[in-house]
Amino acid sequence: MRISELSTRSGVSTASIKFYAREGLLPAGERTGYNQTDYSEAHLRRLRLIRSLIDVGGLPVAAAARVLASIDAPDHPLEQVLSTAQSALPQPVSPPSPASVRRAEEFVAGRGWRAGPQNPGLRILAGVLDAWAAVGREDLASVLPEYARAADVIAEADLDAVSTAVEGARTGGDRAAAAQTVVVGTVLGDQLLVGLRRIAQENASARRYRPTEGNPS
Amino acid sequence: MRISELSTRSGVSTASIKFYAREGLLPAGERTGYNQTDYSEAHLRRLRLIRSLIDVGGLPVAAAARVLASIDAPDHPLEQVLSTAQSALPQPVSPPSPASVRRAEEFVAGRGWRAGPQNPGLRILAGVLDAWAAVGREDLASVLPEYARAADVIAEADLDAVSTAVEGARTGGDRAAAAQTVVVGTVLGDQLLVGLRRIAQENASARRYRPTEGNPS
Repeated sequence: MRISELSTRSGVSTASIKFYAREGLLPAGERTGYNQTDYSEAHLRRLRLIRSLIDVGGLPVAAAARVLASIDAPDHPLEQVLSTAQSALPQPVSPPSPASVRRAEEFVAGRGWRAGPQNPGLRILAGVLDAWAAVGREDLASVLPEYARAADVIAEADLDAVSTAVEGARTGGDRAAAAQTVVVGTVLGDQLLVGLRRIAQENASARRYRPTEGNPS
Repeated sequence: MRISELSTRSGVSTASIKFYAREGLLPAGERTGYNQTDYSEAHLRRLRLIRSLIDVGGLPVAAAARVLASIDAPDHPLEQVLSTAQSALPQPVSPPSPASVRRAEEFVAGRGWRAGPQNPGLRILAGVLDAWAAVGREDLASVLPEYARAADVIAEADLDAVSTAVEGARTGGDRAAAAQTVVVGTVLGDQLLVGLRRIAQENASARRYRPTEGNPS
């Protein structure tokens, strides 16, 4: 198809398509004549993946490029695509305090969690501990055990999806599709959780403060 | 204290302090003489709250201003600060498809969740459904029930923290501190979860793929 059709079907402007091709996120189309380039269904699928990572996942273009490169690398173990996707996600700007990093590590160890010092979650957790301390609300750490319990539930669901994808690729499935599952799941999983948390909060709030439907406050 | 001391103690540059004051996020200091302004401990606490919302919570300045205004409004019911904080958080850029919004509403209704059509989580959830569909991975919806179960655990922990704060304010406590709990909890809770998810994923992955410590792969 021509770039105009690719643009219509993907909802991505031709200027953006050319930009993604120039930046290496989208493979170049096939030149079929003077000033004419042909794009395939694979280009359309790739473009939709790019938009998912950037629009819904909120990744900067450079981070999306790193994630896509990890999908493309043929010798990249699928299990490692997960940590590559994790590292490509936006990280806290300012480094957390050493005291909070230590507290985060102690919390992780206390739960019996196995996680290396490079895990980006440690820095994020330490940053939140710093923020609580900065506003004098260390008492908010009371939510930590329940949040951690929820994180375990989510991680198991994530790993189930990854395992299914890895198993599918081993038994002759599409490796790119498997890697895509991991990446899309990792990037969009954060957003999914943010969305469900909002809904569950309103639900929990409605049940506590307006226990019966016919009794508006 | 002078602005230079406020800057040192908060770690915020004097230029940023002046910017926040100009934008209405930070109350002006007290003029004590020609070219001299005095700042209090309250200014320092406020500045730390501002940085938490922007640096750790990732809020744009305008969104942080809206959240702070909801803390400051004396007649704003504390229970509503939660939804104000929710709405101030970044929203998806492109509106989701009507079909995905319908599916999101069906999922919420199917779980027996009570949430109004204005809940920002519905749009976020619909956006994720759109993104899955765009890359042809509707099968990833298999994670939804477990994610929703985790969201319920989190929402209960959130509401417990809110209830404690609301109760404290009713029994003569500090209303601003209570509102702060709600806002800081809402904004930083997303980040907290993102961090814990990364750690729990590595832990779950280590247990599945490297079941014994002495057996590195």
